[in-house]
Amino acid sequence: MSVNVKPLADRVLVEAAPAEEKTAFGIIIPDTAKEKPQKGTVVAVGPGKKDEPMTLKVGDSVLYGKYSGTELSVEGKEYLIMRESDIYAIV
Amino acid sequence: MSVNVKPLADRVLVEAAPAEEKTAFGIIIPDTAKEKPQKGTVVAVGPGKKDEPMTLKVGDSVLYGKYSGTELSVEGKEYLIMRESDIYAIV
Amino acid sequence: MSVNVKPLADRVLVEAAPAEEKTAFGIIIPDTAKEKPQKGTVVAVGPGKKDEPMTLKVGDSVLYGKYSGTELSVEGKEYLIMRESDIYAIV
Amino acid sequence: MSVNVKPLADRVLVEAAPAEEKTAFGIIIPDTAKEKPQKGTVVAVGPGKKDEPMTLKVGDSVLYGKYSGTELSVEGKEYLIMRESDIYAIV
Amino acid sequence: MSVNVKPLADRVLVEAAPAEEKTAFGIIIPDTAKEKPQKGTVVAVGPGKKDEPMTLKVGDSVLYGKYSGTELSVEGKEYLIMRESDIYAIV
Amino acid sequence: MSVNVKPLADRVLVEAAPAEEKTAFGIIIPDTAKEKPQKGTVVAVGPGKKDEPMTLKVGDSVLYGKYSGTELSVEGKEYLIMRESDIYAIV
Amino acid sequence: MSVNVKPLADRVLVEAAPAEEKTAFGIIIPDTAKEKPQKGTVVAVGPGKKDEPMTLKVGDSVLYGKYSGTELSVEGKEYLIMRESDIYAIV
Repeated sequence: MSVNVKPLADRVLVEAAPAEEKTAFGIIIPDTAKEKPQKGTVVAVGPGKKDEPMTLKVGDSVLYGKYSGTELSVEGKEYLIMRESDIYAIV
Repeated sequence: MSVNVKPLADRVLVEAAPAEEKTAFGIIIPDTAKEKPQKGTVVAVGPGKKDEPMTLKVGDSVLYGKYSGTELSVEGKEYLIMRESDIYAIV
Repeated sequence: MSVNVKPLADRVLVEAAPAEEKTAFGIIIPDTAKEKPQKGTVVAVGPGKKDEPMTLKVGDSVLYGKYSGTELSVEGKEYLIMRESDIYAIV
Repeated sequence: MSVNVKPLADRVLVEAAPAEEKTAFGIIIPDTAKEKPQKGTVVAVGPGKKDEPMTLKVGDSVLYGKYSGTELSVEGKEYLIMRESDIYAIV
Repeated sequence: MSVNVKPLADRVLVEAAPAEEKTAFGIIIPDTAKEKPQKGTVVAVGPGKKDEPMTLKVGDSVLYGKYSGTELSVEGKEYLIMRESDIYAIV
Repeated sequence: MSVNVKPLADRVLVEAAPAEEKTAFGIIIPDTAKEKPQKGTVVAVGPGKKDEPMTLKVGDSVLYGKYSGTELSVEGKEYLIMRESDIYAIV
Repeated sequence: MSVNVKPLADRVLVEAAPAEEKTAFGIIIPDTAKEKPQKGTVVAVGPGKKDEPMTLKVGDSVLYGKYSGTELSVEGKEYLIMRESDIYAIV
């Protein structure tokens, strides 16, 4: 869960949880139809903005919007970078 | 009414009240035609934003707009997560 | 004029005045053609926002825009919920 | 010039000056073609917003944009209600 | 250069300089093709907004954008009323 | 490099550097195809906005966006007037 | 890595890292199909805005959005100039 990226300002780097490969009826969904996961784990946290410290910390399991963040590839692995305000909740 | 979700900032998690299954004329409306409920119960409350404490608390029965919030599935159950400012009133 | 709704923040609950049922020429207008009233009575007032107390109080007769507010049904009766800033004047 | 309306916040109630009924060539323009007047008289003034007192007072003759304000009918007479910032100048 | 108009807030009243009637090749351009002048003279200045005194004064020759301001007719003469921030420079 | 224009607020007057008349292959580009220059020299500087002094001074060589600013003709010469924030860098 | 450009305000000048010339399957991609790099090196940093010092310094390796910044050609070399807030992270 450690990655060599220091997000700027109020950004966090999130590793998306893998989408479930099977639906309730047990059918394998081909790769392109998989719903993009909305759950992930925080792997890096920025220093926050002036007078606004960060609430999230590395390791937090979070829920975020389907279209939140920007995909970043770091050392061959896909992450999402987004602002803390794009994250709905800790689960 | 307890759920393991900690909303961030000024967000609240709302469990929508079930829509009425019958219309005034007693006809069963199939599932897709049911009007999305506008009434719900607050099941989790964020810590609020800087200098803006939250007004709502867990258990409050609330009215909110038809298109407010984002659907979140937690432990197989559907909730709505929205900002406190999207909630019109306590009933 | 009492209703069990507590508007949040700077919102007010307004009961619209009934539209006139007759035009100047004495013809009954069917229900769907009635112009939506722009006059109403305040039936519930929120606590206001931080450092911004409310001006309106329950019982005030107010003028508001034709498209202001959101319709809310409370105990079988229709109301409008809107922000105090959507209300033009007290009459 | 007295009317029983108390505008809220930074709003003013304006009675539009009548449009000229004749053009330069002396032709009577039918009612619907009359250009909406841009000059009017202030008939009611709101209390202003927090820390922003009002500049206008009742009786001021003002110039405002053709599409400024919202029409309000009070006791059978048409007025315009608008924010003070929609008014260009006192004449 | 005196006119009986008191602009509100940070507005100024500008009298546009006449457009040149001849092009470089000496051809008279018909009235509708004349480029709207971008140079004018300040004829009235508002009191400024809270904590923002005005920079311009009556008599200043100014440059402004082609589409800046609103046309106002005062005593049969055309003026432009615009915010000081719409004026680019004093010349 | 001296011009009789006093920009208002945080505006600067920029004289664009001439575009290169030849491409790398030595072909003369006709006038309309010349790329608009993005480099220029500051010829006049406004007083700045409240609590925001200006960084640029007359004579600075600057880089700015292709579509920044408004063209102004002063004494038969073309300039660009733009806000200091439209200027990317001093070179 | 030294360049004679002083970015204004909160801007940074970034030298993009070269895109990989080969894909995973070893095929040379022609120049126009190369994905624009999202990784680069900071080569110049502005002074920051009032009360907002800069976080980045010259030499930082940064990640930024595909469409961030404006291309600037300085001494025949291409750079990107962007605001620090357009940069996601230091790597």
